Amino acid sequence: MESFEVKTRQRTEFVEITDRVRQILQGNGIRDGICVVYCPHTTAALTINENADPDVVHDMLSWLNRSIPQQQPDFRHGEGNSDAHIKSSLVGASVTLLVENGDFVLGRWQGVYFCEFDGPRTRRVHVQCLGK
Amino acid sequence: MESFEVKTRQRTEFVEITDRVRQILQGNGIRDGICVVYCPHTTAALTINENADPDVVHDMLSWLNRSIPQQQPDFRHGEGNSDAHIKSSLVGASVTLLVENGDFVLGRWQGVYFCEFDGPRTRRVHVQCLGK
Amino acid sequence: MESFEVKTRQRTEFVEITDRVRQILQGNGIRDGICVVYCPHTTAALTINENADPDVVHDMLSWLNRSIPQQQPDFRHGEGNSDAHIKSSLVGASVTLLVENGDFVLGRWQGVYFCEFDGPRTRRVHVQCLGK
Repeated sequence: MESFEVKTRQRTEFVEITDRVRQILQGNGIRDGICVVYCPHTTAALTINENADPDVVHDMLSWLNRSIPQQQPDFRHGEGNSDAHIKSSLVGASVTLLVENGDFVLGRWQGVYFCEFDGPRTRRVHVQCLGK
Repeated sequence: MESFEVKTRQRTEFVEITDRVRQILQGNGIRDGICVVYCPHTTAALTINENADPDVVHDMLSWLNRSIPQQQPDFRHGEGNSDAHIKSSLVGASVTLLVENGDFVLGRWQGVYFCEFDGPRTRRVHVQCLGK
Repeated sequence: MESFEVKTRQRTEFVEITDRVRQILQGNGIRDGICVVYCPHTTAALTINENADPDVVHDMLSWLNRSIPQQQPDFRHGEGNSDAHIKSSLVGASVTLLVENGDFVLGRWQGVYFCEFDGPRTRRVHVQCLGK
């Protein structure tokens, strides 16, 4: 398993990490298998989505922040970041990538994103590759 | 890794692919392990849900389409399919199935669905099995 | 693959299962790899989130139940649990944990939860570990 750091700069933000995950895969020597990318934080997540037009990420964050507002009348958690915990479980703590010929099998528009929901913070991402 | 094609016929639609994924597993010879099913598109997704009563899929799509409408005032992405990108990240780009005795360990009502959110289109699904 | 039972006591409830999954890992002898935890039910799910303050789970369930109400005008499924099927697909049927030195690589606040959305019921959880 290997890890790297992601520094986020806003409360909610998607940071593309595809190249950093690819570096770990390529240092690993796995040619055929899978690669699990894991977020060890409960107010952040990982997802795969379009990395061509930044407006896509804008619109995704816009819907998430409008549909899951930070303050809600019946929220009890004292830290005021329950929205981030909800977003984290909906988007998910890990993504699994397929590996063939030593590289990821990504669709033409796909990139891997670290999803910050309670930043800015310094975060970690773990990567575990399996196969041969 | 192996792949197959899914043709969708509506803008939003769930197409069951359990049998096609099982065919790949069985051609593979893996008896015990996992099978990752992967969607290489950013406006579609994969999920596991009930395959007995088609009304379940109707109700799931109904909630998704009502809660994440195609047009929203602050959306910027020019292609008009930001809702599909959001649905894709919420439902997820892959599902992981368990394999035992050469078959999937699915619950009684579970099937694997390709979730189209910006069709109709011709799509691909990738399958990678790991184990022995 | 190994399994265990979870008894839930409310219609919607998160039950922490981290220790029970860890017991399976440790009986397994895998030191380095991944562990897939799988929910074979279509009205329940699995997630990773904070296990320190129980108010976080309260707030997550509160948002889920308010945003995905049990009764909705256009729902057709006769069992009256379409909301549970929707929650199941949004939260997801499995979680993948990383394994290093024979234990999970969990963040400081992370626990694994069985998410009941149509209880109370007696449920099963399957665990498959891969690696060496």
